[in-house]
Amino acid sequence: MVRAMPSDRIRDHAGQGAATTVAAHRARRRLRADRARQLADLLRRQLLTGAFPDGTLPHESALATEYGTSRNTVREALDLLRAEGLVARQPGVGTVVVAHKYPHGLDRLMGLAETLREHGRVTNEVRTMGPAPAPAPVAGRLQLAPGTDVLYIERLRRLNGLPLSLDLTYIPLDIGTELLGADLENTDVFRLLEAVTGRRLGHAEITLEAVSADTHSAAVLEAPRGAAVLMLERLTHLADGRPVDLEFIRFRGDRITMSGLLHRSQ
Amino acid sequence: MVRAMPSDRIRDHAGQGAATTVAAHRARRRLRADRARQLADLLRRQLLTGAFPDGTLPHESALATEYGTSRNTVREALDLLRAEGLVARQPGVGTVVVAHKYPHGLDRLMGLAETLREHGRVTNEVRTMGPAPAPAPVAGRLQLAPGTDVLYIERLRRLNGLPLSLDLTYIPLDIGTELLGADLENTDVFRLLEAVTGRRLGHAEITLEAVSADTHSAAVLEAPRGAAVLMLERLTHLADGRPVDLEFIRFRGDRITMSGLLHRSQ
Repeated sequence: MVRAMPSDRIRDHAGQGAATTVAAHRARRRLRADRARQLADLLRRQLLTGAFPDGTLPHESALATEYGTSRNTVREALDLLRAEGLVARQPGVGTVVVAHKYPHGLDRLMGLAETLREHGRVTNEVRTMGPAPAPAPVAGRLQLAPGTDVLYIERLRRLNGLPLSLDLTYIPLDIGTELLGADLENTDVFRLLEAVTGRRLGHAEITLEAVSADTHSAAVLEAPRGAAVLMLERLTHLADGRPVDLEFIRFRGDRITMSGLLHRSQ
Repeated sequence: MVRAMPSDRIRDHAGQGAATTVAAHRARRRLRADRARQLADLLRRQLLTGAFPDGTLPHESALATEYGTSRNTVREALDLLRAEGLVARQPGVGTVVVAHKYPHGLDRLMGLAETLREHGRVTNEVRTMGPAPAPAPVAGRLQLAPGTDVLYIERLRRLNGLPLSLDLTYIPLDIGTELLGADLENTDVFRLLEAVTGRRLGHAEITLEAVSADTHSAAVLEAPRGAAVLMLERLTHLADGRPVDLEFIRFRGDRITMSGLLHRSQ
């Protein structure tokens, strides 16, 4: 069973009769890079979904045969995955999976401990916590008069001890005051908000972006400088519509995926 | 009306009586970095939502007063936004908004041209297109026998001429064949799939990640090396449930945000 990577045919075509020209050399390099990206995308999913149960990827030559591509392309694809921190080369063993990437639900409004329940224990290091006047953009979104005090909380969140995210949180003070004595180290803010208000949360407006971590954020998250960060801004409302929780969350890109379902009709 | 940034109080506290020690110096620097991040997050939203209609941010001293923080902190926050490619310093003018960041809907399954309709014209450069045997992970997700031919398409997608995303697409060949003669340069694959099959799309399973662009992908997207990329993997099904479109999409992190609503109860 031969399963060639689609662009192999293109490579063969591009190489015909022009193998010695610079243009053909560039074209081959470009096509190898394209094929490597394509293969890396397929392997990424495999390794994130546990397709290599013993934690070791097949040998380069086996992958080359399986995907109908060259060993150079396989090597380049593995280089891409290594740069993303998903695999490592281990002498005498081969390429091993080192990713610790966890799925955050995108279908339902959930706190971190809730959504990662089956993956381990979430703990929160509270870096800053206290009341302070709300800057205008915060006051506006929480429907407060500018300058009204809000509770500001800054937390470094860990799963099984590994830094996952840095969260900046603003909460109206009437609700926030009751959080001051709560067990924030071990409890999602969502859970506390529902406990304190006696009401269910309703919905949240979210915005997701990919940004490069600035030096300081990278240091706090124990990530390499410039590492990709999945940035989530989330304004959460109680079921009655009142906005009660504005958060700016930086997830380590190499530790979190967001998964959900989209429908064509609403 | 004074609106102090929350952590200002903390800074004052940490500085008391230990101003000359190295530890206090480090603590102050850490707190300034924390405040700069906090301010940058607030300004980021402002500038992405058009809060500075003339495209110019207030002067550093005005921002310092408005947010009750120091000019050094403001400068550091603006540095963070500049590093993200959202603002630039223009001599004689000040700090100007340079971001071209567009909102991609996360609530409904939509093609790129569809979701960005009001922001301009999407065009697609087809880099590769042709039938090829499906690698096992592709065949599996499209419910085909391994090695069955699929249509592979690679497109660089632009909005008003600016590169937005690089899309790798796999489509079963019975449907894909009809796409070979279609106007892929100007039409979303989603629209073509519905036209060709005469059926509506149903739902898609999506996974979002933040990754750093590899050298080659960055070059194709005309982004700086190592730039943050919002990576979307999407398996789209027809309304009858048949999977018909597997895509691996790299969005430039500085050009796209994903926005949607989440609900607490399902």
